[in-house]
Amino acid sequence: MQDRPPTPTLDRVAGPADLRRLSDRDLARLAAELRAETISAVSETGGHLGSSLGVVELTVAIHAVFNTPADKLIFDVGHQCYPHKILTGRRDRIRTLRQKDGLSGFTKRAESEHDPFGAAHSSTSISAALGFAVGRDMGRPVGDAIAVVGDGAISAGMAYEALNNAGAEGRRLFVILNDNEMSIAPPVGAMSAYLSRLWGAEPFAQMSKLAEGLEATLPSPMREGARRARALVTGSGHGTLFEELGFDYVGPIDGHDMGQLLTVLRNARARATGPVLIHCCTVKGKGYAPAETSADKYHGVAKFDVESGTQKKGKGGPPAYTKVFGEALTDLAARDPNVVAITAAMPAGTGVDIMARRFPSRVFDVGIAEQHGVTFAAGLAASGLKPFAAIYSTFLQRGYDQVVHDVCLQNLPVRFAIDRAGLVGADGPTHAGAYDIAYLSCLPGMTVMAAADEAELVHMVETAAAHDEGPIAFRYPRGAGTGVTLPERGEVLTIGKGRVLIEGSDVAILSFGAHLQPALEAAEMLEAEGISCTLADARFAKPLDMDLIRQLARHHRAPVTVEQGSGGGFGARVLEAMAGEGLLDTGLAVRTMTLPDRLIHQASPAEMYEDAGLNALDIAARVRMSVERRETVVPFRA
Amino acid sequence: MQDRPPTPTLDRVAGPADLRRLSDRDLARLAAELRAETISAVSETGGHLGSSLGVVELTVAIHAVFNTPADKLIFDVGHQCYPHKILTGRRDRIRTLRQKDGLSGFTKRAESEHDPFGAAHSSTSISAALGFAVGRDMGRPVGDAIAVVGDGAISAGMAYEALNNAGAEGRRLFVILNDNEMSIAPPVGAMSAYLSRLWGAEPFAQMSKLAEGLEATLPSPMREGARRARALVTGSGHGTLFEELGFDYVGPIDGHDMGQLLTVLRNARARATGPVLIHCCTVKGKGYAPAETSADKYHGVAKFDVESGTQKKGKGGPPAYTKVFGEALTDLAARDPNVVAITAAMPAGTGVDIMARRFPSRVFDVGIAEQHGVTFAAGLAASGLKPFAAIYSTFLQRGYDQVVHDVCLQNLPVRFAIDRAGLVGADGPTHAGAYDIAYLSCLPGMTVMAAADEAELVHMVETAAAHDEGPIAFRYPRGAGTGVTLPERGEVLTIGKGRVLIEGSDVAILSFGAHLQPALEAAEMLEAEGISCTLADARFAKPLDMDLIRQLARHHRAPVTVEQGSGGGFGARVLEAMAGEGLLDTGLAVRTMTLPDRLIHQASPAEMYEDAGLNALDIAARVRMSVERRETVVPFRA
Repeated sequence: MQDRPPTPTLDRVAGPADLRRLSDRDLARLAAELRAETISAVSETGGHLGSSLGVVELTVAIHAVFNTPADKLIFDVGHQCYPHKILTGRRDRIRTLRQKDGLSGFTKRAESEHDPFGAAHSSTSISAALGFAVGRDMGRPVGDAIAVVGDGAISAGMAYEALNNAGAEGRRLFVILNDNEMSIAPPVGAMSAYLSRLWGAEPFAQMSKLAEGLEATLPSPMREGARRARALVTGSGHGTLFEELGFDYVGPIDGHDMGQLLTVLRNARARATGPVLIHCCTVKGKGYAPAETSADKYHGVAKFDVESGTQKKGKGGPPAYTKVFGEALTDLAARDPNVVAITAAMPAGTGVDIMARRFPSRVFDVGIAEQHGVTFAAGLAASGLKPFAAIYSTFLQRGYDQVVHDVCLQNLPVRFAIDRAGLVGADGPTHAGAYDIAYLSCLPGMTVMAAADEAELVHMVETAAAHDEGPIAFRYPRGAGTGVTLPERGEVLTIGKGRVLIEGSDVAILSFGAHLQPALEAAEMLEAEGISCTLADARFAKPLDMDLIRQLARHHRAPVTVEQGSGGGFGARVLEAMAGEGLLDTGLAVRTMTLPDRLIHQASPAEMYEDAGLNALDIAARVRMSVERRETVVPFRA
Repeated sequence: MQDRPPTPTLDRVAGPADLRRLSDRDLARLAAELRAETISAVSETGGHLGSSLGVVELTVAIHAVFNTPADKLIFDVGHQCYPHKILTGRRDRIRTLRQKDGLSGFTKRAESEHDPFGAAHSSTSISAALGFAVGRDMGRPVGDAIAVVGDGAISAGMAYEALNNAGAEGRRLFVILNDNEMSIAPPVGAMSAYLSRLWGAEPFAQMSKLAEGLEATLPSPMREGARRARALVTGSGHGTLFEELGFDYVGPIDGHDMGQLLTVLRNARARATGPVLIHCCTVKGKGYAPAETSADKYHGVAKFDVESGTQKKGKGGPPAYTKVFGEALTDLAARDPNVVAITAAMPAGTGVDIMARRFPSRVFDVGIAEQHGVTFAAGLAASGLKPFAAIYSTFLQRGYDQVVHDVCLQNLPVRFAIDRAGLVGADGPTHAGAYDIAYLSCLPGMTVMAAADEAELVHMVETAAAHDEGPIAFRYPRGAGTGVTLPERGEVLTIGKGRVLIEGSDVAILSFGAHLQPALEAAEMLEAEGISCTLADARFAKPLDMDLIRQLARHHRAPVTVEQGSGGGFGARVLEAMAGEGLLDTGLAVRTMTLPDRLIHQASPAEMYEDAGLNALDIAARVRMSVERRETVVPFRA
């Protein structure tokens, strides 16, 4: 453990009520200490440091001005909530962030009354805040509603829908736009400081006009700075989009100037009658040189040394599935000029950045816009290209209707590369890729594959490329592969055919996807006990390998399915198929092993699967239980 | 059949190539005849008349100017495509619109090369058009891409995402904004006519500026009209939103003035290098007085008399589920001031308009914005209100991530009233509510109900209101109820408990939802054959009534599940539960009856269920087949 910084002011703050008793000068000191504490904590846990450092002053100012938790403060996405957690009674647990049994890396209702609406996916905060504002107006015990939303998140369609509706509703509501894409150039800061002093004397409707008037009279370079600041996020050189949507617009202001923040927020709170958007410019990674100077502003970091900023390197090992996908896709793209890739603001997270380095014009980052991204991919497919839409399982939920309506109903050959399938570790249940098998397998025409290891993933990239008959999806987990040797080039797998890895005679495990490894361990445990276990990798949840299923059903008393997904998925479809063919009629102790019907809390993926009752011991135990009831068993013949 | 109008010009047009040989004057004649033909056809079939009448001139002009089908014309939603179908080789079948084996009421790839990208759900066209534009730029045999999108559809988040991305891509692309919310006041039309003549001489980048300059010099009332026209759809008094997003903006123009349309489209086609938005003002129902003067502009009509406009009334009968829901909700709202309702632009379609007439401030129409709508509902629930989100099954797919991430993960008591569950008739597969059981039942904490009849629906509204422990959904079909007596007030059902309607001894049917009626008919057929059939209504797909399922499994050789939904739904969950408890181990000829894994084409709902193999005869046959294999059966005891 490293030396922790002295924090005399922060030590006096057990919660926002204490903070509201501090002088403005002490609030500035508090912010400095809060920044140091945040850096110190994340150096021990890893996490999303850059966003949190960008909102230290803003977080202090909001809690100083508004009456939280009666006033509802809603952070969009939630990456930036660490300083908020430290200020709201969770400082003693801040060094458990993202650990098993520790604090969530996001806001979370179950964790604190200071998190009135949890997050993790982007662009939800304005919708939720409007809900609270309506609740207040209808007499619920709710104060003001404040959404803090980044410039990336506000560009998504969902945020636009919310602004549109909030503006029409006209209710008192605060949206604080945390614009950290842009460094605050001195002219902007100077003008904002000037304006925010003036704003103290005038109601908002006039302030906004006043700001425009002042802008016009400023010397040209300052004026340009101010214009650029607005244009970056408003989609308009006039800052009028928000105003036309019914919002009062204030800004841009310097999100690291405590005096400015307090003045603007106090006036907003005192005077607002309708929706107000406060455009606040911040620096991601602010106040910590290694973060400010790094390309990603320490968006997500491992544990690190505070002095040097050096992150603790992960141990070597097999390549991550993401990297294997990115390289296989790039190799494919080199051979087939029709291959293109789509990402929704996650080029590095999905590995398509690897392809983009070699074929930049064939990789499309559509922004935080999964709805558009999926239908855009459908259009690409309709034009005869071979689109790979690389989207995390949890985020593909955002484009579900587009998968149904634009892809499946038209049977367009969009290839869905579904990363982060199954449980994902420190990001917890909000990022779990638990439902894709269920929500995709029910769609006519969709082919659903899952990779048992990284070599299988390479085959599935090749298989997807070759599959022109309709949509196809392949899922694979977060993290490192199994270390299996990668093929020089992927093979095109036969659609709807699995593979048998071990031929046994008593029992059978039918695994779908990356839980093959624990299934194999279970089979070996059973073998050691004298129970002969067939192990098969289904490869496809849709279409199912009915020959394989018939074999398993006819020659084994107790087939067990295993998958890294919810109920209603692979196992359920196997049961339906068995029932349809009458394979259950004669008695078959079939069991499905899926994620349980509850949320699995953050921990390492292995711990999460243990919590879920899905580790190798669990699988072996389930099979063993069936064996105890077994009757006559006919040996398996492949 | 009524007298059909003479159509000498239209008779010469077998396809767009013929049309492109006509003079401008003949094109205007063609439009007039096309309008008459559209009215005549829809008078015989019913359908979406108002939207189609609004785009008659626009459709003719696009086909005259662009080289369809090499150029890709994509209609958003597709309600307005009837004139397009008449012009593109489908005139001989236009009187089969929305009928069994007839033309789809929407654009459909499988129907014609002139429908390059089908639709039905809103706001997808710009995304798809961008896909084609990229395909063209990458060498695919694709010409220009033209999206025709309404002012309602373009306000959705998805359309915003697409504009944002298309603007950044900067590729040649045409978005025609069909703005029919506003009558074209003469000043606007006059100014546009003037401008469009001028536009003929200048490239776009200058045209747009020129338009602004001209606007400023116009007399005040004309200027105001022009400003209003833009502000209505651009969200800005300056028309700059599209321009700031990277589009050239042209308009507004008069969408019923063939000369203006041809001039603007020809110039756009000749000169555009990047994305262009053409703002075209039209009148919904244009040219047919009964449509123009009706409140909904004949958006969707039954068969009607052309002369008088009188629609053929449906026969009397039981009230529609939608009306029963709306009235039960209103009754509930009268008793509980915390009840609020949310609709995404479908107040009449969902029946919340009934509540809105009595409690206007407690019904929220968020626009075409299911993503926002669901999370807004979550925010309302978090504030302590009791939100009913009334969304069709097919459209709830648009808010799926929000159901998962904002509602279920936080266990917020949002009530989902899911209308149009199951097969829906003339709207066909794009509107089928086929997947909700599967995509909701896999989510932790979600309770999933289905109403067997309209009295059950009333109970489920009451049950949902009383259920504060977490999210709850209830689904019900399109159309009229069964005629069962409605209760004075709904009862609160016990969560996770079904009901037994007939106690039999041989076989069992376990029905989930509105297919109870055919299930009952099947049971009666079987009874008449001497097969004693238990019939139960599960009411809940989640949580399942395990007591009931155990009873059925233990005392009946062949339980059959029946539902109006895809695989992976109720039947699959019953099988999983049975497997988990070992109920399958001793041999049980269980069968699941679901929608088949293919699209069911438009027809009457009864015909569609017949096509799906789900009518009463099918159910009886399935049960009978199982009986033929039956062994010893222990009588059922409830």
